[in-house]
Amino acid sequence: MRESCNFSKQKNKVKQISADLKLTQSELNEDKMSEECGVFGIFNADGDSSAAELTYLGLIALQHRGQESAGICANHQGDFNLHKSMGLVESAFEKEDIRNLKGEMAIGHVRYSTSGSSKLANAQPILINSMKGDLALAHNGNLANGAELRNNLESNGSIFHSTLDTEVIAHLVARSFEDDIVEALIQSLHQLKGGFSLVAMTKDQLVAIRDPRGFRPLSIGKLDNSYIVASESCAFDIIGAEFVRDVAPGEVVVIDEDGIKSRRYTGENGTSLCVFEYIYFARPDSNIAGQNVLLARKEMGKQLAREMDIEADIVVPVPDSGIAAALGFAEESGIPYAQGILRNRYMGRTFIQPTQEIRDLKVRLKLSPIKEIIKDKKVILIDDSIVRGTTSKQIIGRIKEAGAKEVHMAISSPPVEHPCYFGLDTSRRQELIASRSTVEEISESIGADSLHYLSQAGMLKSIKTDVELGFCTACFDGDYPIDSRYLSEED
Amino acid sequence: MRESCNFSKQKNKVKQISADLKLTQSELNEDKMSEECGVFGIFNADGDSSAAELTYLGLIALQHRGQESAGICANHQGDFNLHKSMGLVESAFEKEDIRNLKGEMAIGHVRYSTSGSSKLANAQPILINSMKGDLALAHNGNLANGAELRNNLESNGSIFHSTLDTEVIAHLVARSFEDDIVEALIQSLHQLKGGFSLVAMTKDQLVAIRDPRGFRPLSIGKLDNSYIVASESCAFDIIGAEFVRDVAPGEVVVIDEDGIKSRRYTGENGTSLCVFEYIYFARPDSNIAGQNVLLARKEMGKQLAREMDIEADIVVPVPDSGIAAALGFAEESGIPYAQGILRNRYMGRTFIQPTQEIRDLKVRLKLSPIKEIIKDKKVILIDDSIVRGTTSKQIIGRIKEAGAKEVHMAISSPPVEHPCYFGLDTSRRQELIASRSTVEEISESIGADSLHYLSQAGMLKSIKTDVELGFCTACFDGDYPIDSRYLSEED
Amino acid sequence: MRESCNFSKQKNKVKQISADLKLTQSELNEDKMSEECGVFGIFNADGDSSAAELTYLGLIALQHRGQESAGICANHQGDFNLHKSMGLVESAFEKEDIRNLKGEMAIGHVRYSTSGSSKLANAQPILINSMKGDLALAHNGNLANGAELRNNLESNGSIFHSTLDTEVIAHLVARSFEDDIVEALIQSLHQLKGGFSLVAMTKDQLVAIRDPRGFRPLSIGKLDNSYIVASESCAFDIIGAEFVRDVAPGEVVVIDEDGIKSRRYTGENGTSLCVFEYIYFARPDSNIAGQNVLLARKEMGKQLAREMDIEADIVVPVPDSGIAAALGFAEESGIPYAQGILRNRYMGRTFIQPTQEIRDLKVRLKLSPIKEIIKDKKVILIDDSIVRGTTSKQIIGRIKEAGAKEVHMAISSPPVEHPCYFGLDTSRRQELIASRSTVEEISESIGADSLHYLSQAGMLKSIKTDVELGFCTACFDGDYPIDSRYLSEED
Amino acid sequence: MRESCNFSKQKNKVKQISADLKLTQSELNEDKMSEECGVFGIFNADGDSSAAELTYLGLIALQHRGQESAGICANHQGDFNLHKSMGLVESAFEKEDIRNLKGEMAIGHVRYSTSGSSKLANAQPILINSMKGDLALAHNGNLANGAELRNNLESNGSIFHSTLDTEVIAHLVARSFEDDIVEALIQSLHQLKGGFSLVAMTKDQLVAIRDPRGFRPLSIGKLDNSYIVASESCAFDIIGAEFVRDVAPGEVVVIDEDGIKSRRYTGENGTSLCVFEYIYFARPDSNIAGQNVLLARKEMGKQLAREMDIEADIVVPVPDSGIAAALGFAEESGIPYAQGILRNRYMGRTFIQPTQEIRDLKVRLKLSPIKEIIKDKKVILIDDSIVRGTTSKQIIGRIKEAGAKEVHMAISSPPVEHPCYFGLDTSRRQELIASRSTVEEISESIGADSLHYLSQAGMLKSIKTDVELGFCTACFDGDYPIDSRYLSEED
Repeated sequence: MRESCNFSKQKNKVKQISADLKLTQSELNEDKMSEECGVFGIFNADGDSSAAELTYLGLIALQHRGQESAGICANHQGDFNLHKSMGLVESAFEKEDIRNLKGEMAIGHVRYSTSGSSKLANAQPILINSMKGDLALAHNGNLANGAELRNNLESNGSIFHSTLDTEVIAHLVARSFEDDIVEALIQSLHQLKGGFSLVAMTKDQLVAIRDPRGFRPLSIGKLDNSYIVASESCAFDIIGAEFVRDVAPGEVVVIDEDGIKSRRYTGENGTSLCVFEYIYFARPDSNIAGQNVLLARKEMGKQLAREMDIEADIVVPVPDSGIAAALGFAEESGIPYAQGILRNRYMGRTFIQPTQEIRDLKVRLKLSPIKEIIKDKKVILIDDSIVRGTTSKQIIGRIKEAGAKEVHMAISSPPVEHPCYFGLDTSRRQELIASRSTVEEISESIGADSLHYLSQAGMLKSIKTDVELGFCTACFDGDYPIDSRYLSEED
Repeated sequence: MRESCNFSKQKNKVKQISADLKLTQSELNEDKMSEECGVFGIFNADGDSSAAELTYLGLIALQHRGQESAGICANHQGDFNLHKSMGLVESAFEKEDIRNLKGEMAIGHVRYSTSGSSKLANAQPILINSMKGDLALAHNGNLANGAELRNNLESNGSIFHSTLDTEVIAHLVARSFEDDIVEALIQSLHQLKGGFSLVAMTKDQLVAIRDPRGFRPLSIGKLDNSYIVASESCAFDIIGAEFVRDVAPGEVVVIDEDGIKSRRYTGENGTSLCVFEYIYFARPDSNIAGQNVLLARKEMGKQLAREMDIEADIVVPVPDSGIAAALGFAEESGIPYAQGILRNRYMGRTFIQPTQEIRDLKVRLKLSPIKEIIKDKKVILIDDSIVRGTTSKQIIGRIKEAGAKEVHMAISSPPVEHPCYFGLDTSRRQELIASRSTVEEISESIGADSLHYLSQAGMLKSIKTDVELGFCTACFDGDYPIDSRYLSEED
Repeated sequence: MRESCNFSKQKNKVKQISADLKLTQSELNEDKMSEECGVFGIFNADGDSSAAELTYLGLIALQHRGQESAGICANHQGDFNLHKSMGLVESAFEKEDIRNLKGEMAIGHVRYSTSGSSKLANAQPILINSMKGDLALAHNGNLANGAELRNNLESNGSIFHSTLDTEVIAHLVARSFEDDIVEALIQSLHQLKGGFSLVAMTKDQLVAIRDPRGFRPLSIGKLDNSYIVASESCAFDIIGAEFVRDVAPGEVVVIDEDGIKSRRYTGENGTSLCVFEYIYFARPDSNIAGQNVLLARKEMGKQLAREMDIEADIVVPVPDSGIAAALGFAEESGIPYAQGILRNRYMGRTFIQPTQEIRDLKVRLKLSPIKEIIKDKKVILIDDSIVRGTTSKQIIGRIKEAGAKEVHMAISSPPVEHPCYFGLDTSRRQELIASRSTVEEISESIGADSLHYLSQAGMLKSIKTDVELGFCTACFDGDYPIDSRYLSEED
Repeated sequence: MRESCNFSKQKNKVKQISADLKLTQSELNEDKMSEECGVFGIFNADGDSSAAELTYLGLIALQHRGQESAGICANHQGDFNLHKSMGLVESAFEKEDIRNLKGEMAIGHVRYSTSGSSKLANAQPILINSMKGDLALAHNGNLANGAELRNNLESNGSIFHSTLDTEVIAHLVARSFEDDIVEALIQSLHQLKGGFSLVAMTKDQLVAIRDPRGFRPLSIGKLDNSYIVASESCAFDIIGAEFVRDVAPGEVVVIDEDGIKSRRYTGENGTSLCVFEYIYFARPDSNIAGQNVLLARKEMGKQLAREMDIEADIVVPVPDSGIAAALGFAEESGIPYAQGILRNRYMGRTFIQPTQEIRDLKVRLKLSPIKEIIKDKKVILIDDSIVRGTTSKQIIGRIKEAGAKEVHMAISSPPVEHPCYFGLDTSRRQELIASRSTVEEISESIGADSLHYLSQAGMLKSIKTDVELGFCTACFDGDYPIDSRYLSEED
């Protein structure tokens, strides 16, 4: 029943969208897992820049978390203005758009999504008007029970306009018997299962909420008198703000004229921070739970060197994803680091179809091996992860063409064998090469002379957070920190 | 409470819209009342053209009923596809868009609106997905109790995404306890007050409904095996279909594979067909209730000649609105008809501001008097109506500049003194010049040597419908055919 | 040799153009001859409006003379700025564009062209920079010896960037030994054969030139202290300027700070004003050589009535082209005038292909017969001209479907049997139905019961110019007022 | 005289251009010298891909040489089609555009330019039609005597449509007395002074020419039966072609059905290959004169380490320009290499104005220091060059904010003290910080604790070409390899 509904909804097309949509980046990174969102919020911007300007800059810093659409909702004394558009932040907003987003509060969002449901209706923030007042919502994560909640709401007469979990939350708020909109929002949280980092804005409050297990990061910063919340600390740096602290799992932070107030809406039950934030998603200059991401990656490279026992002439990273680990690997192993592959600054989209002659066109457009470096060398090729294996195969092919004697691929994380249900785009299990092949089989299929993964223990040892934390490692070990009835593959 | 909600909603801007929106036509016709919508639906298109292609052509024929946005929802074996866009039909749909709207059923809509709420979210048809099945709705008219119903629904947790009355109907359907979606729709009708001609599409049915008093027209046509419903019969002609009959006030027509079925959902209580359809809105080649619109207009001109007693040299129409009446007037009075004013084929938008020298720029761009015809003549200037009087003043100014000795303005309908609550854009009473001025004052204010209106009796006598019909003449006499508690001016 | 060159040039495409190009109007008027250009120039605009604003308005008034591209070149104390774009004037210029065209002088141009050479490189005005100074040129007409001159110039090393005759003139100027740019321009004129009305602008002069036989109209107007030149007097009316006089055939008018100076550059040798300006091209509110165009058309209708002897019930015009003549015809004959066919205000482009069922879609979109008027009537159908006959056939078909008993087509000009080489788009002789068929054959082919043309003498008698004038009637009688060696069909 | 001409020409704006133009990259790299062009040509593409497809890919590989505009001219059996547009290759060409560029030969061009003359008229290739046949030209370089030649041509009646040196060459060809177009082109070369690498296409020949001193690179490649010429060898790799050899200085290569023919058009007089190609312009994976560019840069870093005597904790590159040299420096010096600054993958344009709080916004958007790496460290910061010094200052500021104890800036090339007249955008001498300040003054002005440049001898020693070559080092030592009368600063 539900399926067909969803199906037809996804087909509702609003004309202006499709033209703008260029999933350039995700296309090129198709062999990586993909983050689903970044959120940003600011209260009381009082410098030269407006709340919307600072949000715009913050979203640029969070751009790696989502390239499909971008949106900002600003609030000037209770008057809400929303602008959202498909595409990168810089193309989604013209100068005029930012100027029109007046106000001393704003929240923003960047969204990644699989192409199937690419549409403006799914862009965030969403703005709802209820009898309780206006509410803007932006959300990073994935509700495990989103479909179930949606079914219940529709059975009771709710009409949905998007396929967003965020809209599910909005309907729960609208139907709550709580009159105060923030209380209604908090009450709604109790019905949600899964991972979410949520930023909300009422006429006079900025609210930041992290799910009880803390799947996705969310931090608080400060710039003069303004409070800021953002998915990652790199969004503070770009506007010159200081990191204050992370929002705790299960914490509700309410910021208003009287300052910042905190409460918990659930008891403590252990955290499950997504370990892939350290491996690939988060920006290297971000700190999560006190650990700098770049240094974690370098440490994973060192640990990988300790776990491997292989002789080689040079350590070559797949740029840019393998560089930090490769530098760590080279430092630990003593094998020289070499820029044997270059990443091109300009990468054209490939409407040109690959041909017999140029089968590996996508990789050719993106990466160039340097023959003079690679020729006749035993190469250790470093990357942070393999999801589908298609790109790795083409890269190794290019290196062998360039004359490498041997190519030993080394991955600075364990094999990804299980889909993620908490905010990453890996839900189709059959696409995960490690879910259906042994390491040897993968090695052969990508054309490597050998293939090595970092151990899970080695990976976890490389991350030094400032407080003791549990991690979600379900994509590696299938140990999902949530009731299995909510884990289903279909979207 | 409600006001502020609405306020912020109207401000939600989705970027791509504003650029396309050119209310060229309504700008030029600002001295006329404006229709709010045209609807079209087709079941079982089985010729060379798809349902969407025929709907596209039908909407072009109905373009005069709304120029703000256009939309088509097509249905291929239960799979709904919707495309809507701001602007005229021809700019709203590219060839590719129509090609993507596959299917053997379709409904379409053209919308007029005041600029305040111009936005894509208000374009129709709207498509809802409920537990009862998919439903597409397109609507011409105005609910007198729309705001009240919306308030009740929001109090019960409904979230609105537009300011459309159509969405109110959708929410009533979604909340109905009837499981069958058509029954739920019919049940909802009982809560609606006001004028509406509604076309709905389920996975296998096309439904056409007219409100109990029949404020707005709605007709049924046939093309080979396809049934068609449309606001006006001109939409049948363009696709070569034949007129079958009008939908009766209070009738529900359901068309499916088994043919056409009819039922009434209310008792008989007298009709109130909008008389302005004959005066200005409807296309001259349409027939409504068996009366050709052009001939009604010509007859009004004849009747006007009978009611007036004035000597003149020539009868000159304001093109194009006064032409039919002027030809009738000339024929009846024997005073020669003359093309003293020409309408320009190309009318530029006027971002050029009027200046001291060219104050009447809008009229200059649109209309050109022919000095050689007008000079030294006593002119009877014919138009179909005066709403605000601003354009009439500029036209008379131009004619006097061209050397007319006298200008006697004659209007082929009575003075518009009262706002309309049933689908026309005249809700601001203070803008109606006749609501605050006597005929002599208007005459003076527009610079005419005399001003004459057709009597209400004369107007009604000029319309010969095939069945005895009551008309809504509220805009002339204030006699509203609905409970006065629903008549309020704010939008 | 020359052909292939041209061929490849026409293929040079600059990307941004094609998307904007919608030859809507020419598509709908495909059964008419097409004008090739309109020109406008203003010196010393000193009111609230800039020279570019007034030029923009003037071009809107001249829009009927060309819909393919529009351009304005403004001059602020010798600093030239040029903006041109494909499409109608209103879409070619944004507010910002006009604002950027600063200055107290400007010239403008609207261009019609066959689709083959539709490209921005062919838009005018063209702006050249030579050692003699800057010169902007805009041109209406057609050089009979354009190809020959171009060949000579290319043989001597000139490089062309367009297929414009205007660029030929520019190269002649650049190569002239005269140092003064206006003298160089006048010297160049002696090499030109054919029809041209030329407006030129130097750093401090506005120049208007008409070819020795005066094929195309060109008039001088005045607005306060500003002098204006324009293809037609309707361009003066829109900006509130007064008509002063026509530029005489063979006259060079130079306007600068010292006022207006006139000289002749050739002796008198008889005029050949294009008679089709009165029949179809010129706007009805324009006066050419003292004769109002609308009244000329009405008089042709009267004359046609005098020449015909046929009984009928009603006189019905093809709107809008036949209206003036039909009113004259009805007045003279006493047969009642009737609006039996309506022209739709909104005409969609027809990417929808005609089908078996709707073969005459283009005419259906444009024109609607009123059955109630036409049924069982003997109809005299009036139009101003027939070029290819295809549209006439579809219109007559529609009228017969609507129940007309007989349709007698009456054309208010003689049969067009010969191509035009002086600025109209009728160069392909085989497309002219009258060049290969008798009147009876045409009548049969368009489905009329009879067909009548106005006699050439009757046509000429209907035009009363203020001075004795010769007309070019070559398209009717093949009597070309120019050396036959220049008359060749290829473009 | 010449100035004013040029001035008004640069103002001719064609509408569609300005909107698309985003000089993102040059804005961000404003502290670097800028290349002016890249050229590509292919003869006889006979695989699955068309000549235009391969040219498109080649231009993507050459994108770093010019981001302002891109163009391709294809030739199908003598029928030339040209498409050019502002912006990056991937936005300049839609799939459809490439499909329309049919043919077995094509040449392409990417262009960089200062913003002053940014316009589509200046995009290349240019296509001329002369009596000698069609000729398409694409050109990388700068004619020292371009202005002088243009003056002479204009005095003799040539009309220019761009400010391109390429058009000067075109006019010389058009005016040549040689009938054969290739001979005419070669004859024209004798009049040219300065640097140029030229690719030309006639109806059946591809021609590649390098100026006598070989300022700019130009190489020949082969893909099956197709010959290719390109500015850099990286354009061969992307399409799977093999490098054959460089075009020699003063060589004319003509490729046609009979294969490849070579001739010299001047005697030997010493080469002057631009040394900056190795330092910054060329893509690191290109080989020029047999020397891989990346390895030359790494070697310059090593040589810099040998020349410097400074203790430090870490070597940090400015990404990406300093990475290769920094790796060489670290290897030679033994000081650890560290990723202390990260380059962001997504860089928004900065319509957001810098404020008091975020003065260094451009650098913030582009680069992020990693506090955890830099804090309390003595840093050697490596970059390849300093042109204006503004960016260096902001980067050093950011590193110091991040807690660096000392920052010693080391540049892997000598100080740029003199403008370039042969194809680089450094013509305004006063903008070159090293032309007006000592090393100590620069060091102070950029906030470094010390500043070090590579010696000129050290730089030259680092480049090992396969044949003995002279280099142009004029920007470092002012020793221009051309007559000084041609060296003038104005554009």
